[in-house]
Amino acid sequence: MKHSKGILIVISGFSGAGKGTLVKRLLSDYDNYALSISMTTRAPRNSEKDGVEYFFVTKEEFEKTIEEGGLLEHACYCGNYYGTPKKYVEEQLALGRDVILEIDVQGALQIREKFDDTLLLFVTPPSAAELKTRLEGRQTESAEVIANRLSRANEESGWMKEYDFIVVNDDLDECVVNTNSMIEAAHCTPIRSSALINNLQEELKGFSKGDN
Amino acid sequence: MKHSKGILIVISGFSGAGKGTLVKRLLSDYDNYALSISMTTRAPRNSEKDGVEYFFVTKEEFEKTIEEGGLLEHACYCGNYYGTPKKYVEEQLALGRDVILEIDVQGALQIREKFDDTLLLFVTPPSAAELKTRLEGRQTESAEVIANRLSRANEESGWMKEYDFIVVNDDLDECVVNTNSMIEAAHCTPIRSSALINNLQEELKGFSKGDN
Repeated sequence: MKHSKGILIVISGFSGAGKGTLVKRLLSDYDNYALSISMTTRAPRNSEKDGVEYFFVTKEEFEKTIEEGGLLEHACYCGNYYGTPKKYVEEQLALGRDVILEIDVQGALQIREKFDDTLLLFVTPPSAAELKTRLEGRQTESAEVIANRLSRANEESGWMKEYDFIVVNDDLDECVVNTNSMIEAAHCTPIRSSALINNLQEELKGFSKGDN
Repeated sequence: MKHSKGILIVISGFSGAGKGTLVKRLLSDYDNYALSISMTTRAPRNSEKDGVEYFFVTKEEFEKTIEEGGLLEHACYCGNYYGTPKKYVEEQLALGRDVILEIDVQGALQIREKFDDTLLLFVTPPSAAELKTRLEGRQTESAEVIANRLSRANEESGWMKEYDFIVVNDDLDECVVNTNSMIEAAHCTPIRSSALINNLQEELKGFSKGDN
């Protein structure tokens, strides 16, 4: 199916939509994906490890990386910096792999501005009621943090129409397969099939001129 | 995966690309598709039956249907009329089924002008050399007809970039699964998920106002 090079895939979505779990499953179930690890100044949660979920750095280190032009995009969310180191993404795309970035709406739109064939996926539970239930069930967050996340979700929902596909995360197994299908389909858009189209056109032109 | 209504799907592609076989397999392997049967003034091939591959009609009957506004689109190809009867398509879409039209490039662009969320798929063999081999292997067509079809393919290839997805028909089984994936993915674009997005936005707005 893939008649194109590696795609830069941005996965955004409401906090609590299950983006992290979805991304882990894509990486473990299929072998064509590479994960871009973000850099952040926020504190690690319980089980998070440096270089796995994020590169955890200080505010000073983060700002130095911005100055050096080492980030594809960066954003500030809830008082913390988040950004995408450039080098790894470029290396993996050059190897023909699909690179997944799990970043917020601000970052997603920054990325698309720079790379117009970026694929934008927005992950959501089937309803906002379900989102609230999941956030409350997580039990690592205070009521205030949950209220902040719902308010943020309200803002983010205004940007859903800018994305290429809306990924409904209801049943996780289904969601993983569907997301992979969307990415495979994206490989088959004309803009990402230009080598195939150009070859066909050259060959057909030859036949019309009476070549064999 | 499907959080949207039925989609009108146009399948075009080079003569000899295997569109007909692909469409038959989509209809037999999945239960969400309905086939729109075209009307034509061309003569039936060996095994073709009226009301199965096409509705075979006279030039006079065809022109009467045009006058009565009974066609979604129509085109003239190799001296024969081809058109899509309107009523059946509208009925099936209303029932929530995905309706497949197998029509040429001219017709496809006419349809998209009228219905802007039509999904356009273009079927091609992996190369033009393979297309030529398949046309020659068919053995029902004269050398002149084959040359005409290749020349037509040359013209049609200029329109591939107007389509949503390029379907490469190399291995048929793979092609059927991939095409179905593209259609499922198409159901998840924001324009076809507007009911879902609107519901989420309404609910989230309620939460932000402090509702439960």
